[in-house]
Amino acid sequence: MGRSLSHEPRDPAFDARVRASFGRQPLMATLGATITHVAAGEVDIALPFDARFTQQHGFLHAGIVTSAVDTACGYAALTLMEPGAAVLSVEFKLNMLAPASGTHFRATGRVLRAGRTITVCAGELFAIDDQLETSVAVMQATIMTVRDRPALVD
Amino acid sequence: MGRSLSHEPRDPAFDARVRASFGRQPLMATLGATITHVAAGEVDIALPFDARFTQQHGFLHAGIVTSAVDTACGYAALTLMEPGAAVLSVEFKLNMLAPASGTHFRATGRVLRAGRTITVCAGELFAIDDQLETSVAVMQATIMTVRDRPALVD
Amino acid sequence: MGRSLSHEPRDPAFDARVRASFGRQPLMATLGATITHVAAGEVDIALPFDARFTQQHGFLHAGIVTSAVDTACGYAALTLMEPGAAVLSVEFKLNMLAPASGTHFRATGRVLRAGRTITVCAGELFAIDDQLETSVAVMQATIMTVRDRPALVD
Amino acid sequence: MGRSLSHEPRDPAFDARVRASFGRQPLMATLGATITHVAAGEVDIALPFDARFTQQHGFLHAGIVTSAVDTACGYAALTLMEPGAAVLSVEFKLNMLAPASGTHFRATGRVLRAGRTITVCAGELFAIDDQLETSVAVMQATIMTVRDRPALVD
Repeated sequence: MGRSLSHEPRDPAFDARVRASFGRQPLMATLGATITHVAAGEVDIALPFDARFTQQHGFLHAGIVTSAVDTACGYAALTLMEPGAAVLSVEFKLNMLAPASGTHFRATGRVLRAGRTITVCAGELFAIDDQLETSVAVMQATIMTVRDRPALVD
Repeated sequence: MGRSLSHEPRDPAFDARVRASFGRQPLMATLGATITHVAAGEVDIALPFDARFTQQHGFLHAGIVTSAVDTACGYAALTLMEPGAAVLSVEFKLNMLAPASGTHFRATGRVLRAGRTITVCAGELFAIDDQLETSVAVMQATIMTVRDRPALVD
Repeated sequence: MGRSLSHEPRDPAFDARVRASFGRQPLMATLGATITHVAAGEVDIALPFDARFTQQHGFLHAGIVTSAVDTACGYAALTLMEPGAAVLSVEFKLNMLAPASGTHFRATGRVLRAGRTITVCAGELFAIDDQLETSVAVMQATIMTVRDRPALVD
Repeated sequence: MGRSLSHEPRDPAFDARVRASFGRQPLMATLGATITHVAAGEVDIALPFDARFTQQHGFLHAGIVTSAVDTACGYAALTLMEPGAAVLSVEFKLNMLAPASGTHFRATGRVLRAGRTITVCAGELFAIDDQLETSVAVMQATIMTVRDRPALVD
């Protein structure tokens, strides 16, 4: 929709910082998720299908879809935060568009607007089957920049 | 808020049906979740803390919080559906109120209004520590009744 | 759901302050809305039916429902803010439960959790017909406390 | 994000149908809103600034922003519905990105996925000042196709 995504990062080392924080998320390791793309205001995550994380119809559970997309949104927001800050999910809304069925998935997080305190992101999950990508879910998320809490740094 | 929760179930065997469908959710077993309360329009789920499902600050990941609350909401909706129907999450919105920190958690799903096609539910996650319950997250969810799809029955 | 609503106001004059800010909202006057209840963490608004604000089926437009409930949520949050702060709607999600049909309406806003920066509220719209109240819509809203902006005070 | 928007309309007369239903919305006339673009899966609405519809800081009220964007989303969904059906807003979520300040506004609704019963739309409001467009709000909305209700046709 012609949105300019010219977000200026306030931390030149944002790429390493995002990957390091992602590496400290036990859930991502448990899910076998990896971070595949980091740019200013953008993060992608890859996720394999795993029957342990499915719901009763054999599809990836909407909560696992949420785990990947929320993480992508949170780290997309973190790419634009100054050193010393931490990222916090305030809230998100997820619409399922199709069953989360496929051999692999790709979650994307994109910053729509980064304010001093509040960052708004758009997220999406794509199912991948034989190179074909289908959109499975879309998210609209509100992320908060947390400052001055030494115990909470990303 | 004084809402009358006098929902009339259309399936007299709703309790066994909900527990059976819950039992077919691999994710719930993976999380160690159990269903602890089933009534017309109401489902509760118990969840232990497990470091494998945490985010980078050591709290339960918001996507796992979502997994439990979305499941509670979906099955709360299923308690009121006629035999042969299936339950589908259309969308949900979750607000985090506090860090998901505790030794155990309780997720609740309550039907606000059950229509022919659309059911709206309120969900919540409570963290439990030494018998003390703290509200961690609230959800507002839209659930769909799926009919006439023999491959999709709950 | 048994939630303790023992919110402590930081401004002893919160009642007058909320009513004064409400009085500065031209939209509320345009809609003929009045503030009917103010307490710590709680605001109610009354609204008459008016054909000028309806959608194509003759019901109050969902955006007007939103106007009343969002205002109730915002001012419920303001009851707990310190002097000098201003209230800002970050986002909201509204589910329609029934057509907004009736001679009068009552919008409610209740604080679920008031943090230093973020307040989460639950809102609802009731249609009133012959003293009977029907729930028409439910909202989950995120409100922000804005500080140190002299041009923005409520 | 490279989404294919090749939605096939099931009613060849969708353009006239959408404009006629829009013409039956008293709120749109009250707001001075006009429909400026109709295509398969797409609707735009133009809205002037009007002080009667503002909140206490002089900006367009978030509920009025919602009115325009929800209407654009609903009619975007209607462009793809078969004759005889009606459109119903199930729920929406709106994030404010910037104050709704400007001389004119443009609301957009775009179908992300049109299912048999549920259509998911993305909406946005742009403020226009001296030809410059700023994104003010983004919406994610769930719309329902209502059938077999002769009293409810769009």
